[in-house]
Amino acid sequence: MSSFLLVRSRLLTTATPTKAIVPSLTRGFRHSAISMGLSQKLKPAARVSGQRQDVWSIINEAAAASPKQPIVNMGQGFFGYNPPSFLLDAAKEALDRVDCNQYCHTKGRPRLKKAIADAYSPFWGREINPETEVTVTTGANEGMLSAFMAFIEDGDEVIVFEPFFDQYISNIEMPGGKVVYVPMHPPATGATKTSSAADWTIDFDELEKAITPKTKMIVLNTPHNPVGKVYSREELQKIGDLCVKHEIIILSDEVYDRLFYVPFTRIGSLSPEIANLTLTVGSAGKNFYATGWRVGWLIGPEHLIKYVSAAHTRICFVTPSPLQEACAVGFEKAEAAGFWDETIKEMKGKLDRLNAVWDELGMPYSEPEGGYFVLVNMAKVKLPEDYPFPPHVINRPRDFKLAWFLIQEVGVAAIPPTEFYTAENAHLAENYIRFAVCKEDSVLEEAKNRLRGLKKYIQE
Amino acid sequence: MSSFLLVRSRLLTTATPTKAIVPSLTRGFRHSAISMGLSQKLKPAARVSGQRQDVWSIINEAAAASPKQPIVNMGQGFFGYNPPSFLLDAAKEALDRVDCNQYCHTKGRPRLKKAIADAYSPFWGREINPETEVTVTTGANEGMLSAFMAFIEDGDEVIVFEPFFDQYISNIEMPGGKVVYVPMHPPATGATKTSSAADWTIDFDELEKAITPKTKMIVLNTPHNPVGKVYSREELQKIGDLCVKHEIIILSDEVYDRLFYVPFTRIGSLSPEIANLTLTVGSAGKNFYATGWRVGWLIGPEHLIKYVSAAHTRICFVTPSPLQEACAVGFEKAEAAGFWDETIKEMKGKLDRLNAVWDELGMPYSEPEGGYFVLVNMAKVKLPEDYPFPPHVINRPRDFKLAWFLIQEVGVAAIPPTEFYTAENAHLAENYIRFAVCKEDSVLEEAKNRLRGLKKYIQE
Repeated sequence: MSSFLLVRSRLLTTATPTKAIVPSLTRGFRHSAISMGLSQKLKPAARVSGQRQDVWSIINEAAAASPKQPIVNMGQGFFGYNPPSFLLDAAKEALDRVDCNQYCHTKGRPRLKKAIADAYSPFWGREINPETEVTVTTGANEGMLSAFMAFIEDGDEVIVFEPFFDQYISNIEMPGGKVVYVPMHPPATGATKTSSAADWTIDFDELEKAITPKTKMIVLNTPHNPVGKVYSREELQKIGDLCVKHEIIILSDEVYDRLFYVPFTRIGSLSPEIANLTLTVGSAGKNFYATGWRVGWLIGPEHLIKYVSAAHTRICFVTPSPLQEACAVGFEKAEAAGFWDETIKEMKGKLDRLNAVWDELGMPYSEPEGGYFVLVNMAKVKLPEDYPFPPHVINRPRDFKLAWFLIQEVGVAAIPPTEFYTAENAHLAENYIRFAVCKEDSVLEEAKNRLRGLKKYIQE
Repeated sequence: MSSFLLVRSRLLTTATPTKAIVPSLTRGFRHSAISMGLSQKLKPAARVSGQRQDVWSIINEAAAASPKQPIVNMGQGFFGYNPPSFLLDAAKEALDRVDCNQYCHTKGRPRLKKAIADAYSPFWGREINPETEVTVTTGANEGMLSAFMAFIEDGDEVIVFEPFFDQYISNIEMPGGKVVYVPMHPPATGATKTSSAADWTIDFDELEKAITPKTKMIVLNTPHNPVGKVYSREELQKIGDLCVKHEIIILSDEVYDRLFYVPFTRIGSLSPEIANLTLTVGSAGKNFYATGWRVGWLIGPEHLIKYVSAAHTRICFVTPSPLQEACAVGFEKAEAAGFWDETIKEMKGKLDRLNAVWDELGMPYSEPEGGYFVLVNMAKVKLPEDYPFPPHVINRPRDFKLAWFLIQEVGVAAIPPTEFYTAENAHLAENYIRFAVCKEDSVLEEAKNRLRGLKKYIQE
């Protein structure tokens, strides 16, 4: 295993620095403020201040400080290998073209919009108009922020299922939205036996009760991070029907859309009425193993897309031009290269490869229907009673202690999923840990070797 | 001249579509809304709806529709040539590295932060700390938005000089800020004689009167777009002193910082007290002829930078990783390659090359002290009384008519600067037109040939 893993774990601190973790920063500020005679006038906006330390910085700093170096990092979902060569070659060619190095249209390069429309039209069963129904964004993340900025005003409500991707929350709150949470219920037998990620379910009565006259949008995520669930056609139909009934815009985060191991339905394809309310989010980073490229897109009806474009123009203006051109070529070539089939086969192989160790250890997990994350239930792992957890971990749910313990004792970094829950519902996931398998097979094998070290802590 | 110019002019419609320009879009929306039985519940947020047609779409659509094809596009400030080869080679090399294709630290790749700190430390006269005083953003635009998101809350006031870069306004308003405008006064003799862009001046009494207890930030831009002014040390000292007195954060947009033809002062370098309030914005796109790359940065004290980083993390998460790596190499190599000296010499040459035609025509202009724009005063151009201006132009100030007329009659596209003014102060610039000279010399020569066609409309 290369030292790369260690270096990554040190670099990937995506922290909002807080008092707990970076005391010198805070002291520096105070000292500076006092010595310069500054007042409260320089204080930051509430949206960026006072956040508790985020999971990424806790895990990455723990990884950097662990005695088990180099750490096997299965935390953040970046790929441990390169994008396909047809994508890289296209990027290099684009870099030689004057127009590819300069501003392009704020809605995206025409070639990329067309390539996306061509690639997705078959799934929608009709021709998607590249000029009016597709808009390119600077990653799916900025695409979702653009959607919220386009439609949310002070006090509008947005329904989000728990667990959620953490960026949703700040992105909804930035334009003044209020998040209304609806939990996904884990399988009742999750602590004792492995079952499909499909067994994480929505209570549709709970969902309908969460809808108010102020409900403007709902956020879906399928294939789901971190659960690995692919929403069934029936579930999506029920959600869609509710949204049509109450006129709610559906923002469907489908960034893992090329990684499904059961039939995958896109809610935007279910009916014209649902399509009329649906913005579907895609990601070249996830599709093409290039999370650092920041090329995403939204597909949807013109009357929604045009405002997403307008918001994107104000946020990022345009998306990196040479990388857009490369992604256009990527879409043009992927199907013929057999890339989409290969990506499914390869990632399913990685999931199976890792999950074999849980079967071996008798540790139950939610078998992923899509994506590249697996949620493992570690209720059986007995943490030593006097284990020296640091203060910023000891006050978090049990999964944070589990993650800390894994890093310190076996040298594998993974993510505690209660970060993706409200305090009220965090107990639902306090025994789970999320592992990302989008890594080289040799890394997965090393992880398995290390995870076998958990055996002595497992209590049946 | 290649057909590229025409193609660009068609692609570069950065429009927020509006009724005036894209009637079919609006009709489509209405039709759709009615036929689908949708209500007002789907309406967009005020921040993206109801905007009048922006200058970029007016000019680019006019260019596409002009009989004088291909148009010479001197409107938008994209470069007509490629970044230096040391930058392109570095980008291609980065694309072969796994870590350069994946997420990096949200504050930027360590190598780029260090390269920026190393490149800028001499200007500050002290070591800039790359870890705490530099943060990389997805272009300068998103960097400025991140700064506003970090510090502005509902009702906070931000002082902006007119003319302003149009994105400032929406970016201040997104987090709830109120823009307070202070005009730059054009030279009194601007309509009759050429003088330095330095003659655009600030009335410091007006500036101080604009300050209230709610003034949280002020936006500076030097070298200035579109005026071409480089603020003098004395002017910056006065502004800085006012900001220290009233505790106002200074956001200094210095994206044209490598293009100055008179001594250039950075406000953040004037004193520790001023530095403590100053965020300086830079742009790899402008520095390295790569406006389509979207790599920018902010330099400032830790107590400001850390919140800009936090906001950026929520907006874009990370900035395109392979292009960051290339920019790091760019900074490492530029000085030794003589690039910074060359860029000044080359751009000044282009300004002089174009401006010769105004001297020839007896048309006064503001001689740029920095940047790559020139403001030409066309008070002497007599527009035919019965000229058929379209409805969306006829109701705008005279500079929009001048720009339209130039496109139709001589086939040169340029930007009417009253777009960068409030209605109240638009009269100050209604005779000016902005030309971007960051184009191949052959394009500038073709522009001059065409501009000579104005002769018959000039009235002394």
